[in-house]
Amino acid sequence: METKAILQQHIAKTAVLTEEEFDYFYSHFKPLSFKKGQTIISAGDKVNCEYFVISGCLKAFFINDEIKMYILQFAMPTWWTSDYSALYNQTEATINVDCITDAEVLCLSNEDREKLCKEYHQVEHFFRWRTNKGYIASQKRLLSFMNNNVKARYEELLALYPQLYNLVPKHLIAAYLGVSRETLSRLYNS
Amino acid sequence: METKAILQQHIAKTAVLTEEEFDYFYSHFKPLSFKKGQTIISAGDKVNCEYFVISGCLKAFFINDEIKMYILQFAMPTWWTSDYSALYNQTEATINVDCITDAEVLCLSNEDREKLCKEYHQVEHFFRWRTNKGYIASQKRLLSFMNNNVKARYEELLALYPQLYNLVPKHLIAAYLGVSRETLSRLYNS
Repeated sequence: METKAILQQHIAKTAVLTEEEFDYFYSHFKPLSFKKGQTIISAGDKVNCEYFVISGCLKAFFINDEIKMYILQFAMPTWWTSDYSALYNQTEATINVDCITDAEVLCLSNEDREKLCKEYHQVEHFFRWRTNKGYIASQKRLLSFMNNNVKARYEELLALYPQLYNLVPKHLIAAYLGVSRETLSRLYNS
Repeated sequence: METKAILQQHIAKTAVLTEEEFDYFYSHFKPLSFKKGQTIISAGDKVNCEYFVISGCLKAFFINDEIKMYILQFAMPTWWTSDYSALYNQTEATINVDCITDAEVLCLSNEDREKLCKEYHQVEHFFRWRTNKGYIASQKRLLSFMNNNVKARYEELLALYPQLYNLVPKHLIAAYLGVSRETLSRLYNS
């Protein structure tokens, strides 16, 4: 499917835009291609964009004070990602986003999102719905950390990203779950 | 300040509503009073409302499989709280909300929020902004769990809720930080 059609189909699930309105909306997105391993956001960066994934897989991750990596999110096609805290508050990024595979994304700036939300009630509706989904996913992720039940977290991961297991190296799945590679092997083989 | 004026001032920071529009908006909220210790949402409940705090302090918390309590959020005046995952997905609550002190809240149903968002672009704008703030707070909370630096988390807590230390029993602050009461004492006295 064409890049434009992928976004159009995604938006149409929540918001009603005419062909003309969608063309105008789409004209604010910038297509970008990245290679496997390339960095999109580094901790410390100024963040001015959010990214809608067309193809490939990104990861948003955090390196803690003990140099341990935690993955916050795998972003697959039709997922959105950024450091939203840095984006909305215009502060420095605290998380990193890079490419697990080659990837194509559409980039939307903070200013353009706000402008489009102001111009179209339906666009504001879409972004409210999108942020709700992100908020709920983030709350679930938080609860899964509070609930120190690794097996349940592993099962949630498989339900959330069914295609992930074949796509992503096992050490990244371990970094998402917050467990060692050995603990993951035990779960995988159980 | 009168209940209605507290909500009006809160909304006016983000959305422009005429006096008449605000009256109509406000007519959808139901004022409720709770006593200290009273439960508003229990895990397992059907959740149909979100709550805007007028006075007092609520806590949203999670009891994990090991019967350990984690506090997700303290909700003080002009904060919103609910189990948003249960509310939006119409699933059973996984978290609990109860009252640390006597409290007055305004209750808004899921249906009424959606109706008001549809009727007024400005209301949709307000709720998008509100959800953004919640999403960012939730991401920060998640990062603070990933970053196993208790001292930094304690300092963040004091910055987020400066008045909390005198208001809330110390064991609840420990439950927010995910540390024992003894670790908290060491931090507090350091």
